[in-house]
Amino acid sequence: MERPEWNVMVATCPSRTSLARIANKWTAMIVMALDPGRLRFGEIREAVGGISGKVLSETLRQLERDGVVSRTAYDQMPPRVEYELTPLGRSLHQPMAALAAWAQDHIEEVQLSRNAFDEREDERLVG
Amino acid sequence: MERPEWNVMVATCPSRTSLARIANKWTAMIVMALDPGRLRFGEIREAVGGISGKVLSETLRQLERDGVVSRTAYDQMPPRVEYELTPLGRSLHQPMAALAAWAQDHIEEVQLSRNAFDEREDERLVG
Repeated sequence: MERPEWNVMVATCPSRTSLARIANKWTAMIVMALDPGRLRFGEIREAVGGISGKVLSETLRQLERDGVVSRTAYDQMPPRVEYELTPLGRSLHQPMAALAAWAQDHIEEVQLSRNAFDEREDERLVG
Repeated sequence: MERPEWNVMVATCPSRTSLARIANKWTAMIVMALDPGRLRFGEIREAVGGISGKVLSETLRQLERDGVVSRTAYDQMPPRVEYELTPLGRSLHQPMAALAAWAQDHIEEVQLSRNAFDEREDERLVG
C-alpha cells in the first residue's frame, strides 16, 4: 500500500494539526525542559519562564494525547505526577532545540532590523 | 566585550520574542513557500493553504520587521509587490522545513496516539 502524501501546506491534511502543535513556543520550551529527564508539573513550570499553570496543563495534555509526553501518576500521599518525553517526544528535541538556538543566535540581528523598521515607520507617519 | 547569555527559557529575554515568531505554523509555511524564490502576495496565499488575507499580511509585516522577509513595491500600474527571504530568512528554511518534515513523517503515529487517548477518555467518562 502506498504511503499517503502528507503535506502541511494543504489546510485539510492531518499533518497540519501536528505542525500547529509543534510550531509553538510552549511546546518547544516544554520539550527542552523535559530533555534531561522526567519532571513534576511544578518543576516544568519553573523551567519554562512565564508559563501559566493553565497553559502548561493544557499543553501537557495535548502533548500527552499526541504521544509526545507520557504522564505517570503515583498512588501516594501527597499525590505525585511526573511527565517525561516518549521516544516520539525525544525525536522532537533536536528540531525544538534548533528553533531556540536560531532565536538566541540571531536576536541581535533581529533587534537591529526591528529598530530600523520602526524608525522608517515613524518617519513615514511624521513625514 | 562578552556576548550576553540569551536564553529563550527566561520570560523577559529578548530572544523569547524571536522564538514566538518562528515557533509558529504560519511562519513555518510562509518561509517554506518563499524558499524557491520571490512571490507576490496572492501567490504566497495560494501556496499556504487556509491562510486568511489578514493573517498573511500581518505575519508578512512582522517577518519584514524582524528582517526575515523583504518587500519590494514596484512603481507600476497595477501595483506589484513582491516578497522574498532575506539571507537571515534563508537561514530559517532548514529549521522550518524540519518542523514540517517531523509533522508529516510522524502523523500516523500521532493519530494512533490520539485515538488511543480519546478511547481511554471515553471509557473514563462512561465508566
